[in-house]
Amino acid sequence: MRNLTMMTDLYQLTMLNAYLETGTESTLCAFDIFFRKNERLEFAVAAGLQQAIEYIKNLHFTKSDIKYLKSLKLFGEKFFKCVENFKFTGDIYAVREGEMVFPHEPLLTVIAPIYQAQLIETALLNIINHQTLIATKATKITREAKNATVAEFGLRRAQGPDAGIYGARAAIIGGCTTTSNVMTGEMFSVPVSGTHAHSWVMSFPTELDAFRKYAEIYPDNCLLLVDTYDTLKSGVPNAIKIFGELKAKGKKPIGIRLDSGDLAYLSKRARKMLDEAGFPNAKIFVSGDIDEYIISSLKQQGAKIDAYGVGTKLITSDGRSALGGVYKMSAIMENGVWKPKMKFSDDHEKMTNPGIKTTYRIYGEDGMAAADLICLREETIDTAKPLTIFHPVETWKKMTFEKFSVREIMTKIFEKGELVYDIPTIRQTAAYAKKSHSEFWEEYTRLLNPHIYKVDLSDGLYNLKQKMIAENSKEQN
Amino acid sequence: MRNLTMMTDLYQLTMLNAYLETGTESTLCAFDIFFRKNERLEFAVAAGLQQAIEYIKNLHFTKSDIKYLKSLKLFGEKFFKCVENFKFTGDIYAVREGEMVFPHEPLLTVIAPIYQAQLIETALLNIINHQTLIATKATKITREAKNATVAEFGLRRAQGPDAGIYGARAAIIGGCTTTSNVMTGEMFSVPVSGTHAHSWVMSFPTELDAFRKYAEIYPDNCLLLVDTYDTLKSGVPNAIKIFGELKAKGKKPIGIRLDSGDLAYLSKRARKMLDEAGFPNAKIFVSGDIDEYIISSLKQQGAKIDAYGVGTKLITSDGRSALGGVYKMSAIMENGVWKPKMKFSDDHEKMTNPGIKTTYRIYGEDGMAAADLICLREETIDTAKPLTIFHPVETWKKMTFEKFSVREIMTKIFEKGELVYDIPTIRQTAAYAKKSHSEFWEEYTRLLNPHIYKVDLSDGLYNLKQKMIAENSKEQN
Repeated sequence: MRNLTMMTDLYQLTMLNAYLETGTESTLCAFDIFFRKNERLEFAVAAGLQQAIEYIKNLHFTKSDIKYLKSLKLFGEKFFKCVENFKFTGDIYAVREGEMVFPHEPLLTVIAPIYQAQLIETALLNIINHQTLIATKATKITREAKNATVAEFGLRRAQGPDAGIYGARAAIIGGCTTTSNVMTGEMFSVPVSGTHAHSWVMSFPTELDAFRKYAEIYPDNCLLLVDTYDTLKSGVPNAIKIFGELKAKGKKPIGIRLDSGDLAYLSKRARKMLDEAGFPNAKIFVSGDIDEYIISSLKQQGAKIDAYGVGTKLITSDGRSALGGVYKMSAIMENGVWKPKMKFSDDHEKMTNPGIKTTYRIYGEDGMAAADLICLREETIDTAKPLTIFHPVETWKKMTFEKFSVREIMTKIFEKGELVYDIPTIRQTAAYAKKSHSEFWEEYTRLLNPHIYKVDLSDGLYNLKQKMIAENSKEQN
Repeated sequence: MRNLTMMTDLYQLTMLNAYLETGTESTLCAFDIFFRKNERLEFAVAAGLQQAIEYIKNLHFTKSDIKYLKSLKLFGEKFFKCVENFKFTGDIYAVREGEMVFPHEPLLTVIAPIYQAQLIETALLNIINHQTLIATKATKITREAKNATVAEFGLRRAQGPDAGIYGARAAIIGGCTTTSNVMTGEMFSVPVSGTHAHSWVMSFPTELDAFRKYAEIYPDNCLLLVDTYDTLKSGVPNAIKIFGELKAKGKKPIGIRLDSGDLAYLSKRARKMLDEAGFPNAKIFVSGDIDEYIISSLKQQGAKIDAYGVGTKLITSDGRSALGGVYKMSAIMENGVWKPKMKFSDDHEKMTNPGIKTTYRIYGEDGMAAADLICLREETIDTAKPLTIFHPVETWKKMTFEKFSVREIMTKIFEKGELVYDIPTIRQTAAYAKKSHSEFWEEYTRLLNPHIYKVDLSDGLYNLKQKMIAENSKEQN
C-alpha cells in the first residue's frame, strides 16, 4: 500500500511542531470537510472514502522521511519524537461513497488531537475533492445518457497517473459501466473495455483487411472503428461486409464506433445502413469530446447512439477543474467541554456551521428525498411529531412535514483510531450511488436551471449559530 | 519505483494480441507525441520526461498482472508469452524538459516494434500531457509575477495524489520557487515553504497570543497570516507589535500573508503600515484564487506584493484542464524501408506531418529565437547559406535568414531500449526552462493577443507532405 504520509502541506508540519512546543498538541478538535455553494454545482456525489481510509490506516513516517525532515532544520526534538510514533487515534465520520451531497453538508468529520487533525487535512482534501469531483461529473454525464451506456476512457488526458486510476474508479461510482484503464480494472475488479485504434487500421494495406483480421481474432467481440478514412463511404460499408462474413460463421457482431465528424448525422445514417443490411442489433458507439451537454444535444437531435465513450471532459471534469472542498474547524475541547467554533465573514456563504454535526435526509410520504437537515450530533428527530424546517437565511421560507421518515447520511468510519466500517466493493458503491440518485426528483439534477434542493439547519444548530454571530458582533463593537 | 505497466488502455492490449496473432507484431513503427493549435495555447513548456523515462525503464508485467489478464479471456498464448518477457527495445527521442515547444512539433518520438509502441502510448501521453500542461500554466503565472516569487500550494485541490506531487514538480520547472508539498520536496529535492493556517490563530484565545507564540518558536522564519479576523484593524497591527518584539531581540521578521479580501487595496495599506512602523523589509505575501490574470491585474493596480501563493488554478490548470497531446503514427517499416504515414483530414490542422522528424530552432543575429523548422530527421541545415522558410499553409508568407544559427531541440533518450540520456536535476531543468523562455521576445508569450511564433516545415517535409496529399486525393477520385 502506498504511503502518502509526506503528502501534506509544509505548514501542517510547522504547526505540528509549534503545537508540540506550546504543549497544546493534545487539544481535541473537530474539523469538517464540505463544499460551498458554487456556480453549477447544486449537488455532488461523494467519493474517495476508501482511499481516505487506506491513507489513514497507512499513516507512518519512514526513516528516510525523518531524515529528510531533519534536513529542513525547522523542527525540534519533540517533533521528531512525535512523528517517529505517529498514529491516528481519533474518530472519523463520513457520508458513504455514492451518496448525493449538497453544499455545506459535512462529507467527512475528523475528531482528533489537533496535531493529528491538521497533518491529515491536505491528503484528505486531495483525495475527497478529486474523486467527488469526478463522480459528480460522471453522474451528470450518465444521467443525460439515460439508457445508453457510458465507457470511461480518459486516461491519456488525465492529470497524471492517479487522476487516471482513481478518476476511473470515481467514474464507475458515477454510473460509467466500464473503463479503458486496465490498472483500474485490476485494482478494483471493474469491467474494462476497448477494441482497436486508428493505428490498427493504418497498419494494414486496406481498411477491409484490417477489419477482417480483427474479426478473425475477436469473432465474439467485434466492434469496428469506422472513421479512419471515410465513415459512410468506406468504414460502415466495410464493417457491414465483415459483419456478413461473421454472420455466415454464426457469429454476432457487436457493432461500430464513430470517433469524429457530425455524430448526430453519421449515427442516423449508419443506423439506417446497418438496419438495411440486416444488422438491427449491431450497436453504435460514439466517442470524441463528449460530455453531458453534447449527449443532451445528440439526444434532442434523435441521434441513434447505444453507447458513449467519454474521455478528456470526464476525467478532468472539464469546466470545473476542482471541487473546492474545504476543511474547517467546528469545535475545540476546552477543559473537558466542547466549545463550538465558527468562521465569521461578511459573506454569509463563507460563515461556517459551528459544532459537531451530522446530516439527516428527510423523505416525504412518496419515499422521495424532500430536504436535508444539518443537525448537531446530539440532536434527535422525532418522526412522530410534525417537523418544520426553514431556510437558513431567508427564514420566512418554511416547510412542515406531517408524515415523513429520516435517514442519517453520515456513518462512523474510525473510532479511537480503529476502522469500524466495512468498505463496500465498487460494484456495491455504484449500486448505492444509483439508489441515492434515484431518491431525488430529476428536477433537482437536470442540466438547465435545476431546482435547488433544500438544505436547512436544525433548530439547535440555527440557534447556536445565531448566538455565536451575535456574540461576535458584540465583541467587534 | 512504481510499476505503471498496467496503466494502459485495454485496446492497446487487444491490439497487441491481434498483432501477435497476425504475426505483424515486430513491424517497426514511428509515433510522435505533439499537440495541435488550440485556443489560447500558443506555446507550451515540455515536462514529464523524467517520469516517462522511469516508466519505460520499469516496464514489466507482474505475475498478478498476468493472472488478471488471463481472467479477461481476451488473449491467446502468444500474448502471454510476449507479456511475460515484455521489455522496451526501441529508440526514443524527445525535447528536453523545460524547452519551449509549439503546436505540431514532436515532443517525443518512439521508434519501436508496433506492439511495444502501442502499449506505451497511453502512459506516455498521460505523463507528458499532465506535466507539460502544468509547467505551461506555471510559466504563464510566473511570467506575470516578474520579480515577485511564486509558491505552489495547490495539493489539496489537485486531481489526486500524483496531480499534486508531479504537478508541483512541473510547477517548479515552470518557475515556481517553492512548493508546499512536502512529498515533492523530499522526492525531488526542491525547496518547500509554508508557515501557519487560520486554524493556528483560531486555536488561541487571541490573534496576538497566536502570533507571539509563533514568533517565539520561529524567530527566524516569522511570516504571519493576518486575515483571520480583520486584516487592517487587527492582523497587521498585531503583526507589527510582534515584529517590534522580534526586532528588540535582534531578529528580522519575514513578513505577512494576506489570504482574502481586496488584495490590491489591502497590500497597499499594509505596505504603508509596515513602512511607517519601521519594517520596510517585511515582505507581503498574498494568496487566494491567484492566476496569471489576477497577477497581471494586481500589477496594473500597483499592488505592493512581494510573493504569490498559487493553489487551485495552477495545480489544475484552470481554464484548460487537459493539454490534448496526441500520439500519431508517422512511419512504418515495409521490407526494410521506412514508409511515411500521415493522417488525412478535410481540416488541414488535423493532418499530421509524415516521416521521422526533428525540430530545429533558428536564432537570428541577436541570438533570439526567430522560428522553428520541423524537418525530416535525415535533413541537415547549412548555416553558411541563406535559409528561406515559409508558412506551411499560407505559403506566400516567407522569411529569409542570412546570418543565423540553429539548434536541434530533440535529443536521443533511448537507443535499442537502453537509456542514453543523463537526467538532469529539477534545479537544472528549471534553469534550462528559464533559459529557453528567455530566448523568446516577450511578444510571443504575453497574455493578450500574443504574436504567433513561426513553426514551418523544411522543404523536404513540405514536399513529402504535398506528395502524399496529392496521392491520397488521386486515390479517392
